[in-house]
Order: sequence, then C-alpha cells, then structure tokens
Amino acid sequence: MTESQMQGEAVQILLVEDDPDHAELIIRGLQDNGVANRIHHVSDGETALDYLFQRGEYADAETSPRPHLVLLDLRLPKIDGLEVLREIKADEGLRRIPVVVLTSSAAESDIAGAGDNYVNSYLVKPVEFDEFRRMMRDLGFYWLVWNQHP
Amino acid sequence: MTESQMQGEAVQILLVEDDPDHAELIIRGLQDNGVANRIHHVSDGETALDYLFQRGEYADAETSPRPHLVLLDLRLPKIDGLEVLREIKADEGLRRIPVVVLTSSAAESDIAGAGDNYVNSYLVKPVEFDEFRRMMRDLGFYWLVWNQHP
Repeated sequence: MTESQMQGEAVQILLVEDDPDHAELIIRGLQDNGVANRIHHVSDGETALDYLFQRGEYADAETSPRPHLVLLDLRLPKIDGLEVLREIKADEGLRRIPVVVLTSSAAESDIAGAGDNYVNSYLVKPVEFDEFRRMMRDLGFYWLVWNQHP
Repeated sequence: MTESQMQGEAVQILLVEDDPDHAELIIRGLQDNGVANRIHHVSDGETALDYLFQRGEYADAETSPRPHLVLLDLRLPKIDGLEVLREIKADEGLRRIPVVVLTSSAAESDIAGAGDNYVNSYLVKPVEFDEFRRMMRDLGFYWLVWNQHP
C-alpha cells in the first residue's frame, strides 16, 4: 500500500506510446487488474516533456498532475524515448519519478543506453497477448503497490 | 525470459543486509519461488562495495561475478546504504545494475534520498510474514524475469 493509496489519492500514470494498438493493450491491461487509477496518454516525446514540465496547455498542476509512474516507449515521433528519459533524470524535480521503458526493442544498445540514463526498469513488450496482459498486471502491481514513491 | 536465463547462465543477486533474520527471510522467499539462481550475501556497506568493485578478496570475476540485481538495506554498518547506492550509480560500469532498496524505513527523507541517487525501486519490508513472502516472490519475478538487463 503506497502513501498515496492510503490517503485515497488517485495514482497517476503517464503513458508515452505512439502505437494506438499497443496503447490500448497497455491501458486495458492496467485497468483490468484495477491497479491504475488514472492514465494520461500522450503519443510523442515532445508532448511527454511538455506534460512533465507542465508547459503550455499542461501548465495547470490540477489537470496535469505529476505522475507516480512513467511508461515510456523508445521509438517516438519528434523526440525519442531515450532523450525523454535523459531529460527526466537530469531534472531534480522529476528524477524521483520511476520511468519504465516499455518497448519492442530488445537491442543491447537500447537496453544499455537506457541503463546509462538511469532508467528504473526496461521491459520488452511480449508478442503473445496473454503474456502481455500478465506483464501489465505484474508491472502495475509492482510499481503502484509495492514500490514507494515520495 | 531474460537474455541470461535463455543462455542458461546463473542469475546473480547481491544481497546487502545486516539483520540475519531479514536476510534469511529474503533468501528463503526468493529461493522458494525458484527465481534466484545464486545469492551473494554481505552484511555491511564496505563489503558490498568491495564485492561490486571487485577489490581484495573479491578480485576474481569468476568467483565474484557482477550481479544482475542488488538488494540493498539502508541502515548498514561501516558505509550506509545511500552511500553504497550513490557509488554504484556514479560508476559507469555498475550504473546499469538495478538496485532495489529493501528497508524497514518508510521515512520520506530516505525515499527521497534514494530517488535523488537514482535508485531503481524502493520497497519497505512488510511487517507481516505472508506479505513479506509475497513481496519477495513478486520482486524476484519482476526483476529477474520481466526486467531486461544488459
């Protein structure tokens, strides 16, 4: 039970995913298991950074709250996932937010690049549907129930 | 399935824990669920760093291999857990190893301090035995099966 859950505060997830089919699978997988209170979905790296740094249309902290978890695809339009990760982890205000890369790439260079930029965890999207669902269940439970965030 | 498991390579965990009862609970919890191939247990922060940097009696990479996961208590003799974390994440060769803090402290300052030093995940040891076992099962499965490491 995390602090925010004990206080009845909604748990916020920022999902950065440009493939609409994958986004739907992820959102459904998290919601089916009842672990995700609120998912904000954006489709490119630039919008993800605008949201996180509360710029432009995301300036209102009430409607664009800091997420408790970022799920980040790597191949993204405009600004790619590794750069989004780098900017989050370089910022003192955002650094503490867990960032889980969720990608189709199992390339050693991507895994190493994410590790060098302090990714919290790196997951490869399973090809098989049931395995994808199981991963979403375990991912949601691990990060939103077991893991403590400030 | 991680790369190393596919290749049949033993998954290595470094457990840094000074409380013998907690260490036993953690080791049993991981082994019962069959996720931990090999656990190296050390009881203070100085020995943890000697092991990780392969100094002194840990100079042989064959007998002291780089771990795939570090489970790190915070209140440790000699060098405390936050300093161990800081040194791991400041080192280019060690940075990619996931470090999960596993502590009795739910203090905001500890959670924030670990986050500021790029902890991968922060877990508070459950007081209740069955919950402790469930956490060990989920923790082992998440980091050793779902999570990809270089």
